[in-house]
Amino acid sequence: AAIKNNVEQNTASHPSLILTQKGVKNIKAQLGTIPLFDKTLEDVKQDVDAEISKGIAVPIPKDFSGGYTHEQHKKNFLILQKAGVLYQILDDEKYAVYVRDMFLEYAKLYPTLPLHPQERSYARGKLFWQCLNDSNWLVYASQAYDCIYNWLSKEEREHLENDLFIPFANFISEKNPQFFNRVHNHSTWGNVAVGMIALVMDNDELLQKALYGLKTDSIAANLKDDDGGFIKNKDQKVGFLANLDEPFSPDGYYTEGPYYQRYAMYPFLIFAQALENKKPELKIFEHKNAVLTKAVEALINLTDKDGEFYTINDAQKGMSYYSRELVTAVDIAYHYGGNNPELLSIAKKQNKVNLDDTGLAVALGLKNNLDKPFRKKSITLTDGPNGNQGGISILRNNNLEVIFKYTAQGLSHGHYDKLSFFMYNNGTEVIQDYGLARFVNIEQKGGGNYLKENTTWAKQTIAHNTVIQNETSHFNGKYSIGSKNHSNQYLFNISEKIKVVSAKENNAYPGTELHRTMAIVTDSSFIKQPFVLDIFNVIGTSTNKYDLPFYYKGQIMQTNFKYTQQATLKTLGDKNGYQHLFVEALADAPNSNLKFNWMHNNVFYTLTSATQATDKIIFARIGANDPEYNLRRDPTLIIRKTNTKNALYVNAIEAHGSYSPVSEFSVNAYSSIAKIETLLNTKDYTAIRITNNNKQSKLFIFSNTNPDKTTAHSITINDNEFNWVGSYTYN
Amino acid sequence: AAIKNNVEQNTASHPSLILTQKGVKNIKAQLGTIPLFDKTLEDVKQDVDAEISKGIAVPIPKDFSGGYTHEQHKKNFLILQKAGVLYQILDDEKYAVYVRDMFLEYAKLYPTLPLHPQERSYARGKLFWQCLNDSNWLVYASQAYDCIYNWLSKEEREHLENDLFIPFANFISEKNPQFFNRVHNHSTWGNVAVGMIALVMDNDELLQKALYGLKTDSIAANLKDDDGGFIKNKDQKVGFLANLDEPFSPDGYYTEGPYYQRYAMYPFLIFAQALENKKPELKIFEHKNAVLTKAVEALINLTDKDGEFYTINDAQKGMSYYSRELVTAVDIAYHYGGNNPELLSIAKKQNKVNLDDTGLAVALGLKNNLDKPFRKKSITLTDGPNGNQGGISILRNNNLEVIFKYTAQGLSHGHYDKLSFFMYNNGTEVIQDYGLARFVNIEQKGGGNYLKENTTWAKQTIAHNTVIQNETSHFNGKYSIGSKNHSNQYLFNISEKIKVVSAKENNAYPGTELHRTMAIVTDSSFIKQPFVLDIFNVIGTSTNKYDLPFYYKGQIMQTNFKYTQQATLKTLGDKNGYQHLFVEALADAPNSNLKFNWMHNNVFYTLTSATQATDKIIFARIGANDPEYNLRRDPTLIIRKTNTKNALYVNAIEAHGSYSPVSEFSVNAYSSIAKIETLLNTKDYTAIRITNNNKQSKLFIFSNTNPDKTTAHSITINDNEFNWVGSYTYN
Ligand SMILES: [Ca+2]
Ligand SMILES: [Ca+2]
Ligand SMILES: [Ca+2]
Ligand SMILES: [Mg+2]
Ligand SMILES: [Mg+2]
Ligand SMILES: [Mg+2]
Ligand SMILES: [Mg+2]
Repeated sequence: AAIKNNVEQNTASHPSLILTQKGVKNIKAQLGTIPLFDKTLEDVKQDVDAEISKGIAVPIPKDFSGGYTHEQHKKNFLILQKAGVLYQILDDEKYAVYVRDMFLEYAKLYPTLPLHPQERSYARGKLFWQCLNDSNWLVYASQAYDCIYNWLSKEEREHLENDLFIPFANFISEKNPQFFNRVHNHSTWGNVAVGMIALVMDNDELLQKALYGLKTDSIAANLKDDDGGFIKNKDQKVGFLANLDEPFSPDGYYTEGPYYQRYAMYPFLIFAQALENKKPELKIFEHKNAVLTKAVEALINLTDKDGEFYTINDAQKGMSYYSRELVTAVDIAYHYGGNNPELLSIAKKQNKVNLDDTGLAVALGLKNNLDKPFRKKSITLTDGPNGNQGGISILRNNNLEVIFKYTAQGLSHGHYDKLSFFMYNNGTEVIQDYGLARFVNIEQKGGGNYLKENTTWAKQTIAHNTVIQNETSHFNGKYSIGSKNHSNQYLFNISEKIKVVSAKENNAYPGTELHRTMAIVTDSSFIKQPFVLDIFNVIGTSTNKYDLPFYYKGQIMQTNFKYTQQATLKTLGDKNGYQHLFVEALADAPNSNLKFNWMHNNVFYTLTSATQATDKIIFARIGANDPEYNLRRDPTLIIRKTNTKNALYVNAIEAHGSYSPVSEFSVNAYSSIAKIETLLNTKDYTAIRITNNNKQSKLFIFSNTNPDKTTAHSITINDNEFNWVGSYTYN
Repeated sequence: AAIKNNVEQNTASHPSLILTQKGVKNIKAQLGTIPLFDKTLEDVKQDVDAEISKGIAVPIPKDFSGGYTHEQHKKNFLILQKAGVLYQILDDEKYAVYVRDMFLEYAKLYPTLPLHPQERSYARGKLFWQCLNDSNWLVYASQAYDCIYNWLSKEEREHLENDLFIPFANFISEKNPQFFNRVHNHSTWGNVAVGMIALVMDNDELLQKALYGLKTDSIAANLKDDDGGFIKNKDQKVGFLANLDEPFSPDGYYTEGPYYQRYAMYPFLIFAQALENKKPELKIFEHKNAVLTKAVEALINLTDKDGEFYTINDAQKGMSYYSRELVTAVDIAYHYGGNNPELLSIAKKQNKVNLDDTGLAVALGLKNNLDKPFRKKSITLTDGPNGNQGGISILRNNNLEVIFKYTAQGLSHGHYDKLSFFMYNNGTEVIQDYGLARFVNIEQKGGGNYLKENTTWAKQTIAHNTVIQNETSHFNGKYSIGSKNHSNQYLFNISEKIKVVSAKENNAYPGTELHRTMAIVTDSSFIKQPFVLDIFNVIGTSTNKYDLPFYYKGQIMQTNFKYTQQATLKTLGDKNGYQHLFVEALADAPNSNLKFNWMHNNVFYTLTSATQATDKIIFARIGANDPEYNLRRDPTLIIRKTNTKNALYVNAIEAHGSYSPVSEFSVNAYSSIAKIETLLNTKDYTAIRITNNNKQSKLFIFSNTNPDKTTAHSITINDNEFNWVGSYTYN
């Protein structure tokens, strides 16, 4: 159903990429009758009219992102695309004139341009400081060109193609193989840019480059990009199709994480749509078992309750499915992916649609009330081209979301954060992942580019909620090692009462096995609110120091142990990210259970941890060795175990109660967990007892070596025999 | 109109305080026809029914606020009052039974009670740790008693009065003169509690005590309360009427600030309503030129765009006009204060009403669409019983709100913050006032009571955005001195283009004159966005060190000067609040203009300050010597001038531009002010030149000694003659 009858549209006439002649006719016929489409059209018209009234500005490139020339060229390509669409749909020549006149300005400027004066990129552009942004420009501009193609004279077309589009496409491909001939989101943009303009011009040579890459390049084997990623592996397939095959897992998870997936989805989907219209024989939407549609659904599953993407790897907080890229993605996935009615509910929230066949289909679906809620469930998304390089799991109940990461490295945007987790309550971060150290497009902050603290802090293991051995990051913080390894899922099992995910990591610290198991327990007659159970089992072969941080958000209310505030604040260490933490207070852990109670956004939280008297507790705050205030001054609590081969961290996190600053009522401010104990911890089994305030207990027994669901287990603990089937029992 | 025809209701029958027999009849006749009244009734019914189904709990007092027994007794009095109302309106005996049964439990418990076991208060209660909360109980309980008075048997009434209400009233009055016989919000509650129960019982002896205080008491002249406030001055008038006369200024500003005014308004207004019903001859709503109604409007004027109270003096953030006290206040002020239609728009937002005549009037007004927007303008509220003890001014444009404080001390809840300011943009704090160091009713935090950091930090001058001399708080941080002094308004002048307030403080540092002038300039052809101008003129007689902090909220983006991050963090000082600040970075100020650019909630801000090379810049953060994390880790920037008699701080603060983490567009991220210069600064005049990025300049010339609006001025600056009429010119 998804790819029916597109062949007939494949004519030489334009538009034929995103808008099609048939599609435009259809849209025009329905104008004024489909509310969301009409609203979007009106919004876009206002945008474009406002820009037209300001006049055309095509400045000589100079600035980094955030600066004037960067932002102006960026605005230009977005408006070009919109103006092209308006010309087609509204039949008003002023939009065609505007697009042409701006293109003529670019055709005048482009041939005169040297490399962009900012020298920071491994692949400097001409309009922008990097080829990546130049490619953005061409992806959008191609659509505008398609829209006014027939309206232009042959001479105008030849002028634009010879002086602007073809040199532009050659520059970002032939002239920049280190940018174009890779598997990386940058290359995807490059491939698609060349592919899109190729489709408009019916230029098969360029199209072949777009799909399959440059036949030869001269990329040195050990060349690295700005982020420290290798440019190219040996025997690497390249081009658009390779970029589609490799970074996406069969579940649609993009190995760099959702923030970059969001960014990458636009070129993937817009080019897929264009290919579907011009080259239906490629059956691009069926490629790799319909991975493009799955990818869109995966992306939505990687958002919190408000639609904000989880901050996995390099990711700026606040990015969400309200972004323009996701509007495009949702509409295309709906139209070409079988009209999933759950996608309509996302489109409804987005409250805008693509001004093309896909947006029309979505707006029509919404008009006819076909939308169903997008139900985000507990889910695993595998990583790796074949889905066998670990993955990411999200445990969800109503309000709690626990994100547990045991993926591959995630290319150059990956963080050294094996088996880390973070959690949300009701859309609010409770235990945070730091995200990136960058202020995208904010020029004041290093030109809007990655800051050096992204490497020295954000990527380091200590910046994450996972175990660090001997103050050294996973894989020694080396991309060359990290990129060859991944964690492995041990099990993932969802039931009403207990949702469990478990994974192992054996390579982050050679000789040490990391095994973490996380659960959300929903057992209201035992503990009223669902709570998170976290068992981190570390088995070493030498004597080590282990740190487990919790980057809680909010204000400390109470602890059950004394801590000593430091009179002067010093750093926790001098490298691997430790140099960025100031030690605020120190404590010896209680010889049984640590209780750490805090409040955030008027909700109370408690961390309960089975500690030993030899454990040290460190209260620290980010911000040391940060001479330009590039980092947020956020706090952490670290549980440190020293001088030990093995370590078992057993933690529970409760979200409980609330406070109102208006009524000044405080409700259920304390933990309901009286105690957590390890009854048994062997190579094969770990048994945890949880006791509530009414002295009732539950036991969680877990097989550390057999994840099979059907195996019968029997063990004796304190003279009591326990029998169960499957890898664990909670009772 | 406000007090017509209430005499006829003054019969011996009940209810007669808040509900009246006539009022109840009227309400019953209209049930089901007035949406907001019906909705509130339904909400209250659900609340009370839920509590009734849980059964009655009257535990033996034990806990501080936040703890179980405290919260249970608090819940009880709130539910008692509601259940009484439901009995009257719904005619359902189950509510009367519930109220009676709970009263009987209290009548059983109360005679057995010693002083509350928590010993912290200067006036320990019996049900609660302080008489204040006991008084809360009686204010609400009296209303419930009034509602079921006629339903009870004579024997039941005698039992309750003799074993509960009369001993209760005697305990909080005769037995606690240090609590009852003062001018203080505590005493107001005590007076009203006794007055309310007196009115129910028609006990004139108690009523006289309530209105005029105890005739004799044995309060020592130098006795202080828990907050360090003096209990009583010589020849002090006491009782309800004194408490009404003294802390309210003629403008309705309550000297402790809006947070406590909110708290105090409930007893003031509920007792006023009861007096109006039972003793209309007192004409209480006409008292002091209708100060009670003015006070309610003043309170609303002391809220930000979202209705949250400005944090003046001891004040917890987040308290707002959505609190139950303000619902009561707004309805009573509407009904008895001339039916101001702007109050209806606040009631509409509150979305609930009093279940009595006043709420009925409001709900009816809303049903008839009589509401008009409450327009919060730039305003001055004088302080002091006669309005001549300084005041507080709020400068507003659409989104910016600047609060400038030059009041009297504010009783024991006052802060040492003469001429301090804070500001909001669109309801969000930009330059914050710290508020209090307390987590009200959160037991984990010191029983929910004031924390010692409230004295050592929150009240100190360095915690505020004002000048500190020689690291010493105003009045040496001594209440005995502070309470005898106040600042003085110099001028307050509002025009479309420039809104100006100016005040002087001569007593905070003997020998030093502080004169601060603040303005919002709205001059869009010069600087697109409105901006704040701040001129702080310090004239000393000896050589001093002056600090001016700005407690900005958000993340630093950029400065125009180099600063040096400290490798280890030490405190800025060792007393007067300085011991709570860690120094993060230090700098020499630029020899012309300091530019400090930051972002908060996706809006950019810039502080521009005319500095000299000898000025020091200190980046500091709150949290040193705070061993239990009672303080927020918030940042500040301090401009320090050393070794000088005089100092002139000239600052501009702009809110400009925005950032979207969804579109990743950054708009107008930089200041539009190129330079601020002092052209002239003499005893009589200060002249400031502001230059924008287009090299256009404006001059602000200000007379420091003549606030008169009609005087003609003429001065020569750099050979140019300037002539104007009034205390200042902006051109
Ligand atoms: Ca959220
Ligand atoms: Ca204050
Ligand atoms: Ca607000
Ligand atoms: Mg979020
Ligand atoms: Mg990370
Ligand atoms: Mg606020
Ligand atoms: Mg204060």
